[in-house]
Amino acid sequence: MRDTCSSVTDAVYPDYDVLLRIATSRRSLRRFSPNPVDWSLVEAVLEVARLSPSAANSQPWEFVVVEDADTRARISEAAASLFREGRSRDPSFEWSVSVQPFLSQAPVLILVLGDRRMMAAYPSILRGNVLLRQSLANCVYGLQLAAASLGLSTAWGTLQGGTPESEIRDLLRIPDYFTIDHIVPLGYADHVEGEKATALEPARQRGPLRRPLDEMVHRGSYEASKARSDAAAEQFVWDCTVTRVRRPD
Amino acid sequence: MRDTCSSVTDAVYPDYDVLLRIATSRRSLRRFSPNPVDWSLVEAVLEVARLSPSAANSQPWEFVVVEDADTRARISEAAASLFREGRSRDPSFEWSVSVQPFLSQAPVLILVLGDRRMMAAYPSILRGNVLLRQSLANCVYGLQLAAASLGLSTAWGTLQGGTPESEIRDLLRIPDYFTIDHIVPLGYADHVEGEKATALEPARQRGPLRRPLDEMVHRGSYEASKARSDAAAEQFVWDCTVTRVRRPD
Repeated sequence: MRDTCSSVTDAVYPDYDVLLRIATSRRSLRRFSPNPVDWSLVEAVLEVARLSPSAANSQPWEFVVVEDADTRARISEAAASLFREGRSRDPSFEWSVSVQPFLSQAPVLILVLGDRRMMAAYPSILRGNVLLRQSLANCVYGLQLAAASLGLSTAWGTLQGGTPESEIRDLLRIPDYFTIDHIVPLGYADHVEGEKATALEPARQRGPLRRPLDEMVHRGSYEASKARSDAAAEQFVWDCTVTRVRRPD
Repeated sequence: MRDTCSSVTDAVYPDYDVLLRIATSRRSLRRFSPNPVDWSLVEAVLEVARLSPSAANSQPWEFVVVEDADTRARISEAAASLFREGRSRDPSFEWSVSVQPFLSQAPVLILVLGDRRMMAAYPSILRGNVLLRQSLANCVYGLQLAAASLGLSTAWGTLQGGTPESEIRDLLRIPDYFTIDHIVPLGYADHVEGEKATALEPARQRGPLRRPLDEMVHRGSYEASKARSDAAAEQFVWDCTVTRVRRPD
């Protein structure tokens, strides 16, 4: 398990080296400073998000940008309620890494809406719902890379329907034909608080972990010698992802 | 509708400007030159893909890289069969833009596998299948950006189960616990053939189109004045996406 990355090419591709640096520096952040973000930077971030690939070039995304503190708090509260029920259902889940409860810390929240009407552009033999959600994921990743390139931090807050989505829809007067899948907090890192928070230890240790490239690349056909056993896959879930944590009895 | 993009910031963020240039230059390509791609570049592309964000940092992806011409042809044929049935069901669909039939042109095919066992890392209150597929979409976008930064071209070939996936699974001996959602052709553009192919006219004209940023950004709450009517949304599907084309009777 490596936690650093180095360019695998010689330095003859300057754009690649910059991209690799940006992709490496992008991390989900869980403690934000209250320092405001210039609107020009918000626009710069969304400009890259706008260029993301989407099924059929349908560009199903729109963005609601929320800066008002009270509104941010209400969005955060609605999103966090998603996990109240789950907390009892999922005792091994590491709740401290959930993005939703601290969304309001960030000076800017960007809600990435998905226009369901764009599914009419997709071929009927494919599942339009999957294509829509993959397109939105691309948009969020583009947004996050752009933020990282500007020295800004983000995280990825997922909503999937239900009461929280309805509450946020009403609050921001978002039309019914949009999904509200993703809420991205945008701001500057509060490294001091981030380092102090003991609850974030699993995220701090495990967030930067990446499987080595040679374990996941198969040349020609699937290389059975590299297959992870079910036991190894389960161990990875428990020891390397940020969400599953073994607790003392 | 703009088809070019310019930096919205002054040039004080060099990494941002590089990222914007890469994101702008990334395009789905439909005619590839047979020129081979150095293995070091394939690895460089996958190195960035490996760093993509995933739900719970589960990194559910592995890659099968296929260079053998006969195997590429068989994969292409299996993937294209997905559209045979759909062609009659969907008469307004612009089949010429489908990536699957010409996958074999590219000297390298990268199959992005998704390890379903990683869904055990996701909280049970969210739909694991959606989180898995969004994670895989991020990985493909990272891969495409890396390719663009190296002067390489890609496209996005979607599979969603069924007979084509089974055929490819058997051919490449891919274990059952992987989805085979995405096949990405990687190579150098054949601009001469691309310009000549009249069947690609809709993709050539519409692929680079992007909705203007100010139409999709809402500050504070959803701005009703910017809402697209159902009629405008339908018109966008027919006039601006690459897949729906009005045909003369």
